[in-house]
Amino acid sequence: MSVLIVGSTALDSIKTPTAENPRLLGGSASHAAVAASFFSPARLIGVVGDDFPKKYLDLYRRHKINLEGLQILPGKTFHWSGEYEANMNHRRTLLTELGVFETFTPTLPAVHQATPFVLLANIAPALQHHVLDQVRRPKFVVADTMDLWLNIALPELLKLLPRLDGFVLNDSEAHQLTQEDNLFTALKKIHRLGPRYVIIKKGSHGSILSGPKGFFICPAYPLTNVVDPTGAGDTFVGGMMGYLASARGTIEANLRRAMIYGSVTASFCCEGFGLTRITRVRRADIDRRVKELEKLTRF
Amino acid sequence: MSVLIVGSTALDSIKTPTAENPRLLGGSASHAAVAASFFSPARLIGVVGDDFPKKYLDLYRRHKINLEGLQILPGKTFHWSGEYEANMNHRRTLLTELGVFETFTPTLPAVHQATPFVLLANIAPALQHHVLDQVRRPKFVVADTMDLWLNIALPELLKLLPRLDGFVLNDSEAHQLTQEDNLFTALKKIHRLGPRYVIIKKGSHGSILSGPKGFFICPAYPLTNVVDPTGAGDTFVGGMMGYLASARGTIEANLRRAMIYGSVTASFCCEGFGLTRITRVRRADIDRRVKELEKLTRF
Repeated sequence: MSVLIVGSTALDSIKTPTAENPRLLGGSASHAAVAASFFSPARLIGVVGDDFPKKYLDLYRRHKINLEGLQILPGKTFHWSGEYEANMNHRRTLLTELGVFETFTPTLPAVHQATPFVLLANIAPALQHHVLDQVRRPKFVVADTMDLWLNIALPELLKLLPRLDGFVLNDSEAHQLTQEDNLFTALKKIHRLGPRYVIIKKGSHGSILSGPKGFFICPAYPLTNVVDPTGAGDTFVGGMMGYLASARGTIEANLRRAMIYGSVTASFCCEGFGLTRITRVRRADIDRRVKELEKLTRF
Repeated sequence: MSVLIVGSTALDSIKTPTAENPRLLGGSASHAAVAASFFSPARLIGVVGDDFPKKYLDLYRRHKINLEGLQILPGKTFHWSGEYEANMNHRRTLLTELGVFETFTPTLPAVHQATPFVLLANIAPALQHHVLDQVRRPKFVVADTMDLWLNIALPELLKLLPRLDGFVLNDSEAHQLTQEDNLFTALKKIHRLGPRYVIIKKGSHGSILSGPKGFFICPAYPLTNVVDPTGAGDTFVGGMMGYLASARGTIEANLRRAMIYGSVTASFCCEGFGLTRITRVRRADIDRRVKELEKLTRF
């Protein structure tokens, strides 16, 4: 089945202690769609300016990502610039130029309105609502978010939560949302806000699923070479949704393995700047690391 | 088989945001010996003053901990006092009174010199050396440490590492020791310093084993009620060594499961002040959480 993905489509200029890479393809929807594409057909909803390099459109197409919902408007593509510290755990934003993203109003092509799997990747909650309003009876809806929306758009986010099947956020955002220091207590509080499944991303420490059948502790694949973690969270949730859309059986039965696939897909994302590494990966590479992860956690 | 445990035997006064508990039984050897005692006979090497409450000697005895190597000297028992922040991840030391610990020179009773499993719990590396010098042909020697020894006794610690089978430290200590930001690269560097097995403790994020057959990602048991994490690391390594000493087969075959048992034993430690919770636990409670952890990680 297909996955509909709305989020940002951007050019990222990324600085790390060892390198600097200007105007890479980035944005939550780009990362999530490429990740999902390894498992299922992905449908991208986004906007770029007329400065958007053709090579990046070609990249989407190589991943067979449906671009009917990608608007190309006169003006500049959303441009983000950030810098990482030596340990790759902290980054600071150097610059944000919204460009055509400022007035982005996603409109779903009619053929997309019945997509069964919907990923509301990291973007303003108002836009996540706007897309969800246009989808008819989706099978499974997941939203990702970031601290920015907790700070400036909390009411819209709180209204979104009851509309979701799954909600993904990181550990510090879970703390910010619930004022709860204990992660597992925070999870209980987030369920009360609406979503049946809540997933906490913990970066190199893996992720935690909380659902009707309890917790799942999902490991991260051990990496010795973290080049650029930008987009790893988007890749995780994109890979997870792509795998879910490809799997037979119930969501409940497939979600754990879907998280493992998301986790492994995200590991490739971290090994290169932007999408440079992951676009050279094949499905067999992902399957190999999933098998490894099975061995690394067996006891 | 038996586990010989040397470390500190102390009185801990612990403050958290919600409570204050003076003069609890504490110290790395106390925590590790009680944890080990669930699985194997533990032999304690330590020193206390003549102010040491009889009820704590009784507590050791209830856990069938061999006290032939526990010296009781005129003077005061080592007293540590610390305070935790709201999230239980940071603590600061308020007071350290060494007392009789200042001149502690552990002497092994003759009957202990052939103990097959040796745990050099957190204590000055010079004392870890001193105990190891007195042991004859041990089967498996593991040392734990802390940042203090990296700061003030690094040469002795570096001389200890080649004498160990296993070395246990936390993630920030691994970074401090190797100047390496990436945990898995740090692990490789620590192996070069001597130990065949290196275990990184990551608190609520679990732990990582690195050995000849690669990595093992060991989860932490999900806790909603963390009352006092003091001694959790000591409990982890004590439980691990106790389980190892009880298990048939090779170390290599048992170490992963031993870490799981250590992790679960440590989860009980966190649920009460000092040793108050763990001394009310039975082996069946531990086995139950191990089974749960199997379910929580299966995919």
